[in-house]
Amino acid sequence: PYQRQVYDLFLPENLREDLQKKSEAARQILQPGVHLPSLQHYHSLVPLDTKIRGATNTFGLPSWVFKATSRKNGNVFCLRRIEGFRLTNEEAIKAVNSWKKIIHPNIVTTIEAFTTRDFNDSSLVFVHSYHPLSKTLAEHHFSTNRFGRPTAVPERVLWSYLVQLASALKAIHKAKLAARCIDISKVIITEKNRIRLSACSIQDVLHFEVPRRIEELQQEDFFSLGRLILSIATNTPPRNLGDLRLPLEQLGRTYSIELKERISWLLSPPQNMATKTAEHLVYDLAQHADDVLVASLDTEDELTTHLGRELENGRLVRLVAKLGSINERPEFDGDPNWAETAERYTLKLFRDYVFHQVDSQGSPVVDLGHIISCLNKLDAGIDEKIYLTSRDHQSTFVVSYKELKKQLQGAFSELLKAGSKTQANRSY
Amino acid sequence: PYQRQVYDLFLPENLREDLQKKSEAARQILQPGVHLPSLQHYHSLVPLDTKIRGATNTFGLPSWVFKATSRKNGNVFCLRRIEGFRLTNEEAIKAVNSWKKIIHPNIVTTIEAFTTRDFNDSSLVFVHSYHPLSKTLAEHHFSTNRFGRPTAVPERVLWSYLVQLASALKAIHKAKLAARCIDISKVIITEKNRIRLSACSIQDVLHFEVPRRIEELQQEDFFSLGRLILSIATNTPPRNLGDLRLPLEQLGRTYSIELKERISWLLSPPQNMATKTAEHLVYDLAQHADDVLVASLDTEDELTTHLGRELENGRLVRLVAKLGSINERPEFDGDPNWAETAERYTLKLFRDYVFHQVDSQGSPVVDLGHIISCLNKLDAGIDEKIYLTSRDHQSTFVVSYKELKKQLQGAFSELLKAGSKTQANRSY
Ligand SMILES: Nc1ncnc2c1ncn2[C@@H]1O[C@H](COP(=O)(O)OP(=O)(O)OP(=O)(O)O)[C@@H](O)[C@H]1O
Ligand SMILES: Nc1ncnc2c1ncn2[C@@H]1O[C@H](COP(=O)(O)OP(=O)(O)OP(=O)(O)O)[C@@H](O)[C@H]1O
Ligand SMILES: [Mg+2]
Ligand SMILES: [Mg+2]
Repeated sequence: PYQRQVYDLFLPENLREDLQKKSEAARQILQPGVHLPSLQHYHSLVPLDTKIRGATNTFGLPSWVFKATSRKNGNVFCLRRIEGFRLTNEEAIKAVNSWKKIIHPNIVTTIEAFTTRDFNDSSLVFVHSYHPLSKTLAEHHFSTNRFGRPTAVPERVLWSYLVQLASALKAIHKAKLAARCIDISKVIITEKNRIRLSACSIQDVLHFEVPRRIEELQQEDFFSLGRLILSIATNTPPRNLGDLRLPLEQLGRTYSIELKERISWLLSPPQNMATKTAEHLVYDLAQHADDVLVASLDTEDELTTHLGRELENGRLVRLVAKLGSINERPEFDGDPNWAETAERYTLKLFRDYVFHQVDSQGSPVVDLGHIISCLNKLDAGIDEKIYLTSRDHQSTFVVSYKELKKQLQGAFSELLKAGSKTQANRSY
Repeated sequence: PYQRQVYDLFLPENLREDLQKKSEAARQILQPGVHLPSLQHYHSLVPLDTKIRGATNTFGLPSWVFKATSRKNGNVFCLRRIEGFRLTNEEAIKAVNSWKKIIHPNIVTTIEAFTTRDFNDSSLVFVHSYHPLSKTLAEHHFSTNRFGRPTAVPERVLWSYLVQLASALKAIHKAKLAARCIDISKVIITEKNRIRLSACSIQDVLHFEVPRRIEELQQEDFFSLGRLILSIATNTPPRNLGDLRLPLEQLGRTYSIELKERISWLLSPPQNMATKTAEHLVYDLAQHADDVLVASLDTEDELTTHLGRELENGRLVRLVAKLGSINERPEFDGDPNWAETAERYTLKLFRDYVFHQVDSQGSPVVDLGHIISCLNKLDAGIDEKIYLTSRDHQSTFVVSYKELKKQLQGAFSELLKAGSKTQANRSY
């Protein structure tokens, strides 16, 4: 009952690689010599910007993005420095407080904001959650080092973006806020087709002195969303879109009527009486939201399966650790023959049985499946019996996995008991 | 930069336990002596039924549920035996073919069906995906061993059930099929609040000889869905619901008007002109589907984080394995002092530094955070230097992690080179 194919036991290579690269990115540090200041309790800053900025960008001021580690909890965060911003009203920075409460899978969480003189100027710093190796939608879809004509983005990807950002807007508008940053450079891709609004709260602080009606800003969010999808669908950077009717026609030629209608609705000028609402948008997107939901539930299932398997590997590793700490032990309690006598001798022969199988010609049989199956049987302590042969082939034992398990536990607890009390920890 | 809190490094205990219990359940086998037949390539059957059945149930015939392992791939499946069913038309069993194509996160996948005489009668066996430790909605909500009055099911759980089953119905009806098994005993909970239709295709085979219009069966699915939610909401087993207007009133007193309206719609007799569609239902549930989507995306993020951390642990385990295979090695290549000389000696002192820290009084300091931080630094090979002191306190070395990493790789590849070629596998 313990046979499983070996490929089943390991994480798919691409997922493993992706997770490893992300973990490396999160742990990356600068070469010694390069120096960036620490900001409050954030240290080990590493720049995340991929391009050298001109002076004007989304925020009208140069901005710089870093990852940094918090001394408080060792976690990594994303810091955005707005260069040369002099805060004239201390109240402005409190605008981030409402944003801290917005926790949503399509919104990068706002942690805090503060001013700093550590860059030898007046800078404003926003702290957000860090998503290793994320790219902006602009970087993802308008990458310049691509050769030839970029292929059209599949319609279901556009629907998925719409569904995710509609869900984000619903949460934001419900909290009486407006996103104000729905822009291909401010929406980041963090996993396959998963997007998040990355720069929330910033505009609220920067423009605190010239407040605008929240309803008006919310209506602008819908317009920005329409423009964003239009830009990606027609492969045209926003600044080149010009009169929106033309790209909308172009979109209509490649994609469904339904998509064109949704985008038209988003772009249509607000009618006095019929303001747009995120709920309305969520209704209109219902069938596509169902597709996104199905995909997400499938991903959940896959991840759960992978996690379960990784845990199984962990269980086997602990078992091998126990076995390894008994087998070939040079001496125990003054007895240099401990590992070679009584139950420990059986466990030694079992180790040979597990790891040192040979074929009839005496050549090694390296079979991960055999190893894993043996270890699983040992762990379960089943009644199945196996033959163990001494290295000199002079004697043979018949022993069940059940007995082996008992012997392993016995020998290991001898070690544990003799070891320092404090070192016997729960990992075994 | 490598400091992380220890609690961050391990999977939350409840998730780990849940996954472990499920993995144990999947690996569970019967005590020797108990014997169930193998069915085709399915062996090691274990009954999953939790109650002794009377003769009548959902299918009008006694049914028995088992888990079994496939000899083809070692995977575990769920088998349902319909006892005493004599297949009169070979075509009937082909009804499962359309069901095999229905892959959906809220539907248990149908694998195949066959007849068998291995139970010494004519039985029909349906093979479905196996979901360890799942419970039926009936078992979950109407468990009899609960004390006192059961607490009311939160409204968002009911909406979540509705959203999930609406999504399942949409997929099923789109394929021109009908579920025919929306019943509290045939919907299983496999993860927290995650439900799946568990017995698809069975009715289609059993009633193959008396076919009914698919449109009619689909309309019945909506009615069954309404009844199912009504039953759970009012804590009344379906057979006790009686005239549905009363429990519907009762539901209205505890839950929102919106929920009552949705259930009324599901229960309303089909109007000739306006048949219900799953799309319509999906529209009506849009705002609640958004909640389910947000929850699912959050779960995805959590699982991804956990998986990344388990992989990090795996990386450290491999590092410890390398270190362990060098440290204290009794002899190598005929040299009993190998582990005590040259770079291996530094690695031995490093091992002491990592695992055997003592305080100024000489008492052991057991600090998992220290161990993990050291190993992460070693893995990264950073420039940070540490002091290593010999056990007799006579000499001290200054060495960087970078150098230590090089030494570890050097010593380990010596071992690898000398080892059997076939055993040097990719796991290191
Ligand atoms: N929360 C985050 N976690 C990780 N990386 C992020 C995060 N937010 C942004 N980034 C990354 O930082 C880089 C710079 O982001 P930024 O928003 O400055 O984009 P940009 O193209 O430079 O836009 P702008 O012209 O407005 O500066 C991008 O690669 C982006 O993916
Ligand atoms: N695909 C599956 N994977 C794992 N367990 C399942 C699966 N399908 C059903 N089960 C479990 O098998 C047990 C019996 O299921 P069954 O459908 O027979 O329920 P029941 O209450 O006995 O209903 P009935 O009266 O119709 O027989 C339940 O605990 C259920 O959770
Ligand atoms: Mg930038
Ligand atoms: Mg049953």
